[in-house]
Amino acid sequence: MLIVLQHDATQAQIDQVCDAITELGFEPRTMPGGQRTAIGVVGNEGPIDAGRFHGLPGVLRAIPVTVPYKLVSLEWKPARTVITLDNGTRIGGEALTIMGGPCSVENEVQLMTTAEKVLEAGGTVLRGGAFKPRTSPYAFHGLGEEGLHLLVKARERFGLAIITEAMDVEGARLVAQHADIVQIGARNMQNYPLLREVGRLGRPVMLKRGMSATVKEWLLAAEYILSEGNTQVILCERGIRSFDSSTRNVMDLGAIAHVRTLSHLPVLADPSHATGRRELVTPMARAAVAAGADGIIVETHPNPAHALSDGQQALLPEQFAEMVKQVQTIGTSIGRSIQALRGAA
Amino acid sequence: MLIVLQHDATQAQIDQVCDAITELGFEPRTMPGGQRTAIGVVGNEGPIDAGRFHGLPGVLRAIPVTVPYKLVSLEWKPARTVITLDNGTRIGGEALTIMGGPCSVENEVQLMTTAEKVLEAGGTVLRGGAFKPRTSPYAFHGLGEEGLHLLVKARERFGLAIITEAMDVEGARLVAQHADIVQIGARNMQNYPLLREVGRLGRPVMLKRGMSATVKEWLLAAEYILSEGNTQVILCERGIRSFDSSTRNVMDLGAIAHVRTLSHLPVLADPSHATGRRELVTPMARAAVAAGADGIIVETHPNPAHALSDGQQALLPEQFAEMVKQVQTIGTSIGRSIQALRGAA
Amino acid sequence: MLIVLQHDATQAQIDQVCDAITELGFEPRTMPGGQRTAIGVVGNEGPIDAGRFHGLPGVLRAIPVTVPYKLVSLEWKPARTVITLDNGTRIGGEALTIMGGPCSVENEVQLMTTAEKVLEAGGTVLRGGAFKPRTSPYAFHGLGEEGLHLLVKARERFGLAIITEAMDVEGARLVAQHADIVQIGARNMQNYPLLREVGRLGRPVMLKRGMSATVKEWLLAAEYILSEGNTQVILCERGIRSFDSSTRNVMDLGAIAHVRTLSHLPVLADPSHATGRRELVTPMARAAVAAGADGIIVETHPNPAHALSDGQQALLPEQFAEMVKQVQTIGTSIGRSIQALRGAA
Amino acid sequence: MLIVLQHDATQAQIDQVCDAITELGFEPRTMPGGQRTAIGVVGNEGPIDAGRFHGLPGVLRAIPVTVPYKLVSLEWKPARTVITLDNGTRIGGEALTIMGGPCSVENEVQLMTTAEKVLEAGGTVLRGGAFKPRTSPYAFHGLGEEGLHLLVKARERFGLAIITEAMDVEGARLVAQHADIVQIGARNMQNYPLLREVGRLGRPVMLKRGMSATVKEWLLAAEYILSEGNTQVILCERGIRSFDSSTRNVMDLGAIAHVRTLSHLPVLADPSHATGRRELVTPMARAAVAAGADGIIVETHPNPAHALSDGQQALLPEQFAEMVKQVQTIGTSIGRSIQALRGAA
Repeated sequence: MLIVLQHDATQAQIDQVCDAITELGFEPRTMPGGQRTAIGVVGNEGPIDAGRFHGLPGVLRAIPVTVPYKLVSLEWKPARTVITLDNGTRIGGEALTIMGGPCSVENEVQLMTTAEKVLEAGGTVLRGGAFKPRTSPYAFHGLGEEGLHLLVKARERFGLAIITEAMDVEGARLVAQHADIVQIGARNMQNYPLLREVGRLGRPVMLKRGMSATVKEWLLAAEYILSEGNTQVILCERGIRSFDSSTRNVMDLGAIAHVRTLSHLPVLADPSHATGRRELVTPMARAAVAAGADGIIVETHPNPAHALSDGQQALLPEQFAEMVKQVQTIGTSIGRSIQALRGAA
Repeated sequence: MLIVLQHDATQAQIDQVCDAITELGFEPRTMPGGQRTAIGVVGNEGPIDAGRFHGLPGVLRAIPVTVPYKLVSLEWKPARTVITLDNGTRIGGEALTIMGGPCSVENEVQLMTTAEKVLEAGGTVLRGGAFKPRTSPYAFHGLGEEGLHLLVKARERFGLAIITEAMDVEGARLVAQHADIVQIGARNMQNYPLLREVGRLGRPVMLKRGMSATVKEWLLAAEYILSEGNTQVILCERGIRSFDSSTRNVMDLGAIAHVRTLSHLPVLADPSHATGRRELVTPMARAAVAAGADGIIVETHPNPAHALSDGQQALLPEQFAEMVKQVQTIGTSIGRSIQALRGAA
Repeated sequence: MLIVLQHDATQAQIDQVCDAITELGFEPRTMPGGQRTAIGVVGNEGPIDAGRFHGLPGVLRAIPVTVPYKLVSLEWKPARTVITLDNGTRIGGEALTIMGGPCSVENEVQLMTTAEKVLEAGGTVLRGGAFKPRTSPYAFHGLGEEGLHLLVKARERFGLAIITEAMDVEGARLVAQHADIVQIGARNMQNYPLLREVGRLGRPVMLKRGMSATVKEWLLAAEYILSEGNTQVILCERGIRSFDSSTRNVMDLGAIAHVRTLSHLPVLADPSHATGRRELVTPMARAAVAAGADGIIVETHPNPAHALSDGQQALLPEQFAEMVKQVQTIGTSIGRSIQALRGAA
Repeated sequence: MLIVLQHDATQAQIDQVCDAITELGFEPRTMPGGQRTAIGVVGNEGPIDAGRFHGLPGVLRAIPVTVPYKLVSLEWKPARTVITLDNGTRIGGEALTIMGGPCSVENEVQLMTTAEKVLEAGGTVLRGGAFKPRTSPYAFHGLGEEGLHLLVKARERFGLAIITEAMDVEGARLVAQHADIVQIGARNMQNYPLLREVGRLGRPVMLKRGMSATVKEWLLAAEYILSEGNTQVILCERGIRSFDSSTRNVMDLGAIAHVRTLSHLPVLADPSHATGRRELVTPMARAAVAAGADGIIVETHPNPAHALSDGQQALLPEQFAEMVKQVQTIGTSIGRSIQALRGAA
């Protein structure tokens, strides 16, 4: 913590700030400057609340120095985390992970058709929403537990691992019983009871970045999960909110590159939600891998025009296969392979 | 829904879009223009998913026409909602509502001292966090149920109504048993299981706007609560996220004025979280009332420099009292009074 | 400047940073902490470029301490600036300033009709665009010099001061010859040759905040003008860009309250451009004054439905008069009057 | 234009809107719906101002249908534009363009050293600021005309084409006399007199996207240049403003992919300004090419720690060379080459 004083701060005000620091059990270190004085706080183990100093007379600003997260940081754990699923999929290693599937699980035929195409294209993880968070209460909200059972059936038939979203504590327990990865959606990135619960459940978790979450907040949300003992966390960039509505969101690939310099956790990219437009999904999947993503999660549907949700961003199965090929080519060019169960890769 | 075609769309493509509309049970109405053709969809009762048309050949855009919310809208219920609490506080009527209290309930002395000052200043509702959502897992998270009991004690002693936040379904049930108003925080504005639960609990709910929620999404979140049968919803603007970190958030008073043209629900303003800076709270409280807010909720603490959370934005009790006076003066100038239990107003 | 090192920085790296500081002519002050070391830079007169240190080995962050503006700051000039125009209008004093007029000057009848109504309502400054920056090259771009002459004619007839926008150096010279205030629009807030030019012309300048300018950037843009010797600068908040398109912009009244704690320059508010919706102009004009604005600039047009630009946000003359009354009532309630030439105030 | 009425609009109000449409010379087409009526406007050649209808009684919204730009659009000119410079560089074709150089031209040694390294690495265009827009009036503003002459000298010695920024009309004329490409910076994207001037000068123009410009506004700014007769326009994405300050800006690669579906103009990417952090430049350069950019413009400096501006984002010459190699590998993987004068490519 560095406390910057107003340029006309009196000696009495400086002393008062030093006393406040001493009172907290730390040591003040005065730095007189040409224009103003600043006071460093020395001896603290963790972060200090800047608010303690904002209101004191003569204080202009209090600037935090310590990074507020720890377990997720590359500074504290330099070895990158690799997560291995039951079907052999490794997330965060040299190989790229391909996840695909429909936005919502709609029925058995739709899911099995899609799963087969995902497998053939080179995917190893099947996505599909059973519990769907929807902006409107009147939209389709998923099949619920029945959707979960269909996902399990698809896993049994095709050997794909499965990932699906949980929206509350109860749902998280149910999902963790059945799915290989529990997904926390963007709207729930700061749902702390839910984060703590998935931290205790022990299943791998994919944590999507909130619509307007800073990188720091995203990492702190992951820290919630790790602080409960679960280190198997996958980050996922899915686009952030901006002033331009010409695409659904702005895909922040710089955040992917940046997170890789800050954290040891794997980072995936979701170009479907990030762009919201089918024709942009493939170029942005390529770009995400080029920026350093450890894999992609992409929506595909056998008949997008009849999808019950987000049809405009789902790839046709043949487009999905073509996208995986292009991603593989990009991956190869930067020394990363695709580890498929069978199929294209 | 209006479907706009590319300027070189063929007649076959136009026909295909018309067929898709007919297939959904609606009627297409073709509008040939100088540059391009557009097709209107007629006969739908509710909103149609634009995604159904985005992928069709020749289609440039699909523009929704129907507003997606209903129960919250002024168009469908022109009489403004007024909510009456057990202690006589009316929210949404001619009188302005003043809510005040600490960010977190810390201990009995702190809470009782604050409650007395809030009452004396002209407040009728006591705020205080028992369950605190914090960005970092290592920050103070509130006293939990003990905090709730202290709030009840303060109500018994001073006659103030009490409001406190719930973060999950279980917590919401507990809060609804004890508090007069259940608060849903900004981070949970799209926590749908929680919204549905407070929709069923029957207690008045204060729904804070999400950090990057559009007005439409905010109203749709309220619609979740109303659609479960609970019409006692208070909206609360608490600042939105912007590119400028010089204040904690940007207080969107235009949204307050705008929401009043769209919805019959009362709207409060929270200048403490919106600005994050003590010296801006009073001017922004005045401004919120001038813009049309039905009241304010403001943090006050007997000793902000020692507050366990958000001390830098809490007013001292005497600053709180002065702020209420100024708000009252502004209110009077536009025909609104303050309905106090006792004290300044 | 505070330079924060990585927690595993070596002594050699620490020494290298200290050498770099010494080389720049300043003094390093080392602050060893529990987790990491930070190094303060002492002895600099003005700001130092943080980039000098970002790339050095072992450096995590470089945090600037010195505020980068000077002449505009309240810290350096504690007396608030008051600007007096030829017709006696004082901007920045106790009295509120009311500016009104059409978006564009369209013809003599339109302008004279509007000017008379502005005067009657209590305004002292007539606004009207002669040179219009428009997003599309195909929109109406103003009457140019002819518009300027019509404004001068209106001043002669009604005694109102006049303000109009300049978009380039040549135009600024022309506008400064005729108008009482030269307006710099939001799109040109960082047009530095233009800022320098109006800094040399000596006329009062109204500097609108850029669409996505931080408060710091806005004040630095004003610093450009003051650094050329012109201290007669009026700031104007006109809404910033956000993720929500339900209003044209988000009016950042917190920035008005905040700027008043940072700078001695007067601050006006433009609720017409900030909201873009006629029905929101009056509530936001009231709110701006309640937040501490020194006045307002509002669009009014005798026949908005036929305006050549921005008709949807212009008030009818009778709405303008009613708005001034409400603003006056709010002003009175916080100790500010309206100084009219004649009319309502 | 589609005009949506309130659900309780009267027949008289509907008739009034139809009359307003007829009065403008167009034809109204009424679309009665289940909930409300909408009225289409038929017969217009270009866009209509929505403001004309917003204020009419019974009107809820007016929705524009026509895209407001024309000359820049792929819809109207399906063949992609390729720009050829005097040294043979082709921009917008199959080959990727590599531009590199320092942020500011500082002196002859610095520029010549850098130019040689850019050439060797595979670049064909040398960038370097002679006139620098800086947020603070007290920062280094470039060498001016002397910088321009040094650039010309570098072109003569190495055969590289040169690009440099112009900030006003006078400067644009000077730059156009000497440079191969006139750059319009982000701050000037809506400086319309400047856009018109470079539209008349006939030199290739690189138009950077404004910090908070939508894709539509960016294309409209380009339309200004094309509407003056200059079709040699290169778009350049350089990062947009967001709520997260962990990187300087957010690089919007989705906009690059999106623009390619809307416009025939070449699009470059500037990962230096987009990220502001040296360690992110190379991954984002790779990603930009993977997303479909026609080339990159990257800052490099022989001694970034002593650069007079933006040192923290400049690559060392050897990092620049390595980046070009990686970009080339990515380019090859998607069928694009690098057309070098000599060197790595």
